[in-house]
Amino acid sequence: MNAPLMPLPPPGPADRLRRRLWRLVWALTCRFTPVPLLGWRRAVLRLFGARIGAGAWIYPSARIWAPWNLTLERDARIGPGAEVYNVAPVVIGAGAVVSQDACLCTASHDFDRPGFALTTAAITLGEGCWVAAGAFVGPGVSIGARAVALARAVVVRDLPPGVVAGGNPARILRMRGRARLVRGIAAE
Amino acid sequence: MNAPLMPLPPPGPADRLRRRLWRLVWALTCRFTPVPLLGWRRAVLRLFGARIGAGAWIYPSARIWAPWNLTLERDARIGPGAEVYNVAPVVIGAGAVVSQDACLCTASHDFDRPGFALTTAAITLGEGCWVAAGAFVGPGVSIGARAVALARAVVVRDLPPGVVAGGNPARILRMRGRARLVRGIAAE
Amino acid sequence: MNAPLMPLPPPGPADRLRRRLWRLVWALTCRFTPVPLLGWRRAVLRLFGARIGAGAWIYPSARIWAPWNLTLERDARIGPGAEVYNVAPVVIGAGAVVSQDACLCTASHDFDRPGFALTTAAITLGEGCWVAAGAFVGPGVSIGARAVALARAVVVRDLPPGVVAGGNPARILRMRGRARLVRGIAAE
Repeated sequence: MNAPLMPLPPPGPADRLRRRLWRLVWALTCRFTPVPLLGWRRAVLRLFGARIGAGAWIYPSARIWAPWNLTLERDARIGPGAEVYNVAPVVIGAGAVVSQDACLCTASHDFDRPGFALTTAAITLGEGCWVAAGAFVGPGVSIGARAVALARAVVVRDLPPGVVAGGNPARILRMRGRARLVRGIAAE
Repeated sequence: MNAPLMPLPPPGPADRLRRRLWRLVWALTCRFTPVPLLGWRRAVLRLFGARIGAGAWIYPSARIWAPWNLTLERDARIGPGAEVYNVAPVVIGAGAVVSQDACLCTASHDFDRPGFALTTAAITLGEGCWVAAGAFVGPGVSIGARAVALARAVVVRDLPPGVVAGGNPARILRMRGRARLVRGIAAE
Repeated sequence: MNAPLMPLPPPGPADRLRRRLWRLVWALTCRFTPVPLLGWRRAVLRLFGARIGAGAWIYPSARIWAPWNLTLERDARIGPGAEVYNVAPVVIGAGAVVSQDACLCTASHDFDRPGFALTTAAITLGEGCWVAAGAFVGPGVSIGARAVALARAVVVRDLPPGVVAGGNPARILRMRGRARLVRGIAAE
């Protein structure tokens, strides 16, 4: 059961200013830093309200929309070109990996009602899970611990712990583990 | 029935020059403007031949290949990072929304015949339809009024009015409206 | 049968330095060159170990991860925004076309074993094949001569020669040739 999509009130001037300031600071102080300067980028993100555990990696070309809506547990990683569009909170569990060009998208529109209201819902990635290159995770999705979304998977429903999912829309293909020993389920 | 793909003659020197000039002007005068400077970007696009209705939004990071092949009706929106590759005409209906990183691609190659000729066909988005984040609309596709292409949908055939489609390739999932009341069709 | 994924030893300091130098040289001498300056970009790539045939096209906005792992046969093309993430070798056959924003990705992780080791496998594109806009080719994949991966296709298994494949995951839709004459197989 995905988290429900909630309408989002339009941003006030303070919120707009905060986001503009954030974008400017990241562009000037982090965007073009060398990859190993991890501690510096963690510090800048924390200054803007992100909760970031020890050993977490954020690549300089990753794009965080709102650091005050980001929780990155220890040793989690956000890869090059990955986008965290966290209008609602995004929690990335310990040791989880979001690979290059993946996108975590917390916003949508209520297209079934007049008004086309902006709606949002939080995304949660469990401990040790992997969102592979170019995958997309939609609003309200929880990915269970150690689950895998394969490259370019489009995940719009919750994934239980330990599964391997792929495709658009993503389907569960097998359990993570020793691929050859799983009977009756096609290896991806 | 998609619009047929037609061979495109190779561009002449005047056409190449026009496109180079357009790219340069956009890069220098629009690409780094603040989002609310909508009227300015509309004016620059119109100067290059785009037909743009009142209230239309074009984000500074959107990429328009050829403004002389663009019709954007009133209140239509082209979001951040969206790409309009309009080698053939693209018409975006009133109030329609093309969200971030979506791509409207009017060109292909005739790969079934020797020569691999470049081919193109127009794209038409009906009034009030929504092409969500990262979706792709192929050459010759018409999307009916109020239809929805969900995030990352790959739409290569026409969509009738009012449907909700998703996946790669995109399939029709249900009618737009009150999702809970539609029986027998899985909600997306 | 895809090529097997092999564990990759972590890069040494010489390798890191070489990659940094390559990125810098491309950014300064090629990234912003005009499209027709093909010979210059070929020369720079060859200087870093790429094997490039006569008449090959590489667009200035294409991204080559490691030129020393690139073989581009005569008249092959790598389009704008395309990414060749060639941690393992990538061979692109004569006259093959990799269109805009496509991605050839030779790396993955062994997510079924503790350690989550980086793994890689070579990618081979046969003569005259076409990887269309925004398509993704995974590690170890061989695409047969003249085969087509349609726009946004996600190809994670080998494709035999002459087929047309599309979707995520990609499925074989028909044979390349005169589309109307193929019976019993839906045209894409």
